[in-house]
Amino acid sequence: MSKQILVLPGDGIGPEIMAEAVKVLQLANDKFQLDFELSYDELGGAAVDKYGVPLADETLGRARAADAILLGAVGGPKWDKIDPAIRPERGLLKIRSELGLFGNLRPALLYPQLADASSLKPEIVAGLDILIVRELTGGIYFGKPRESKVLENGERMAYDTLPYSESEIRRIAKVGFDMAMVRNKKLCSVDKANVLASSQLWRAVVEEVAKDYPEIELSHMYVDNAAMQLVRAPKQFDVIVTDNMFGDILSDEASMLTGSIGMLPSASLDAGNKGMYEPCHGSAPDIAGQGIANPLATILSVSMMLRYSFNQVAAADAIEQAVSDVLDQGLRTGDIWSEGCTKVGTQAMGDAVVAAL
Amino acid sequence: MSKQILVLPGDGIGPEIMAEAVKVLQLANDKFQLDFELSYDELGGAAVDKYGVPLADETLGRARAADAILLGAVGGPKWDKIDPAIRPERGLLKIRSELGLFGNLRPALLYPQLADASSLKPEIVAGLDILIVRELTGGIYFGKPRESKVLENGERMAYDTLPYSESEIRRIAKVGFDMAMVRNKKLCSVDKANVLASSQLWRAVVEEVAKDYPEIELSHMYVDNAAMQLVRAPKQFDVIVTDNMFGDILSDEASMLTGSIGMLPSASLDAGNKGMYEPCHGSAPDIAGQGIANPLATILSVSMMLRYSFNQVAAADAIEQAVSDVLDQGLRTGDIWSEGCTKVGTQAMGDAVVAAL
Ligand SMILES: CC(C)[C@H](C(=O)O)[C@@H](O)C(=O)O
Ligand SMILES: CC(C)[C@H](C(=O)O)[C@@H](O)C(=O)O
Repeated sequence: MSKQILVLPGDGIGPEIMAEAVKVLQLANDKFQLDFELSYDELGGAAVDKYGVPLADETLGRARAADAILLGAVGGPKWDKIDPAIRPERGLLKIRSELGLFGNLRPALLYPQLADASSLKPEIVAGLDILIVRELTGGIYFGKPRESKVLENGERMAYDTLPYSESEIRRIAKVGFDMAMVRNKKLCSVDKANVLASSQLWRAVVEEVAKDYPEIELSHMYVDNAAMQLVRAPKQFDVIVTDNMFGDILSDEASMLTGSIGMLPSASLDAGNKGMYEPCHGSAPDIAGQGIANPLATILSVSMMLRYSFNQVAAADAIEQAVSDVLDQGLRTGDIWSEGCTKVGTQAMGDAVVAAL
Repeated sequence: MSKQILVLPGDGIGPEIMAEAVKVLQLANDKFQLDFELSYDELGGAAVDKYGVPLADETLGRARAADAILLGAVGGPKWDKIDPAIRPERGLLKIRSELGLFGNLRPALLYPQLADASSLKPEIVAGLDILIVRELTGGIYFGKPRESKVLENGERMAYDTLPYSESEIRRIAKVGFDMAMVRNKKLCSVDKANVLASSQLWRAVVEEVAKDYPEIELSHMYVDNAAMQLVRAPKQFDVIVTDNMFGDILSDEASMLTGSIGMLPSASLDAGNKGMYEPCHGSAPDIAGQGIANPLATILSVSMMLRYSFNQVAAADAIEQAVSDVLDQGLRTGDIWSEGCTKVGTQAMGDAVVAAL
């Protein structure tokens, strides 16, 4: 039976970069006889415009029925002033939560062809290859109660709750250890156990899970120190596992170390490796519609999808090789362009990957 | 009447670096007729050893009575396994909270003499001069309820609460705007208003306070983006104001951009500019007792104290100049040493600053 892929182009540059990724996916489909069937829907601001909500029930139903989801990016100034309850981001948070996509994999990989793009010194980042495993459906993003209210003295106050249960921590810790097993066998768990009750439980449970992975070298680091160490000596890390909020911050910091966030894909997986795949970068409304956005992170998200959700290693490898080939050819979109390279637009870049594949 | 300074050397390298800072303070005292009187007590692990708690009531009483507090650093592996309720850090959190030291100023300044020490490319960080204003007595650090419990199904869970009231946000926002007024008139408020209720209130109140500062160019940034922008282009920032947790993470990241965290002081101020002054770095237990720690951040904390709590601008300037002079002389402790400079120990560095002053 054919595999169903739900494509959600989203907002801003989303539709442009997704068009290129779909070209690549369709070619891989033919070439490797993957038997994929694509359908399309909206998420985020585009869904607000079409359905009045950032994630419509029918879209959620399609997402549940699909075998994997490809997402562009969501959000933009157009929806900045609307009711917070239907902001584009709420659609993203809801699909993560409803589909149980708790395991967020965010690689920070430096492409040798793009070494100069980093704002860090070459010797600090050359060969950088970190994987951040972020818990994606718990913690302060979804904790209840959360409230905004007026106190008796007339003052406003608001609060959020940061909860974690043992089972939530255990399942994401396992993802961290499993990833470390197939990489360099080093896992760093990041928390703030010197201050937070939730972090103390986090650390205790990670220690328990570690017993099942005697081969893994486990360390713990406070989040403030991790933010420093990523700048000072990022190559000390192999896999980092951390909670939703810390993972949001550290994965963005880590991806920027490479200087080419336009190159980085991500995966959000459920317990059965069903996943949603999207570029790490945002919807870049400032350059939307100009045909200059970098489609490579979305194309590499296709490759991640083939690898993690469908175990199509050969096809995934082929796409990554094709991306590497176009970089070798000197083709660059504006965000990764440097002296001596050929500047190309979104479509030309997509076509080049298709040709290389 | 003479001014009372309470000196808390703390743990690890604390006593060593404090000894040098006190030498400098005493010389400034004589030279500028400051009429300071020093007394000593313990905080953190040293207080656990002496009093059984990381902040004794009598120490807190002395801190309340003092006009300013100089702190070394707290914590170390010796106290890692003790009851979490009396960990060294609890003493630090308690003194901040009990004295109402809500305004934490953390400069990230690149010394031209140390430009090479940064892991970032010179053109990205040359001339870097950011001030992070961190809220220090509220948010998730102190929010109630916080609990660790066992659910009915036998599973453990734990949670923390992140609360902010209008008045807490207003007073720290004012510190941010006031600092921006005497700097480059640019303030960036960092939050996660696309996810957190507390951040939505934060943003609204900062906007309100902004009305009193029409000269200031205010911007808002999500914390994940701020973590990226600090790596990508840190010089876009002048003053950053943010909450306790985000400030903890971003100030450490920012200080590491300079490559010389051993040079960075900090101030924690109450509503009347009474303050506690301490280096940004920690207690570095790995090098404690070896006489090799860098005392300059603590010496510069003395200068910050003179400036912010006592308005002794000439004395503060003189200390900063003396530090700059010893750097010009090529003297370096191990943490900031580079080829061609003279490596010196803690005491020799302190003596050199005294001589320059
Ligand atoms: C858009 C926002 C809600 C989201 C998050 O904070 O998770 C984004 O920053 C991300 O990291 O995917
Ligand atoms: C020691 C720890 C509790 C403290 C904090 O998180 O505030 C430290 O990291 C700091 O930034 O002063």
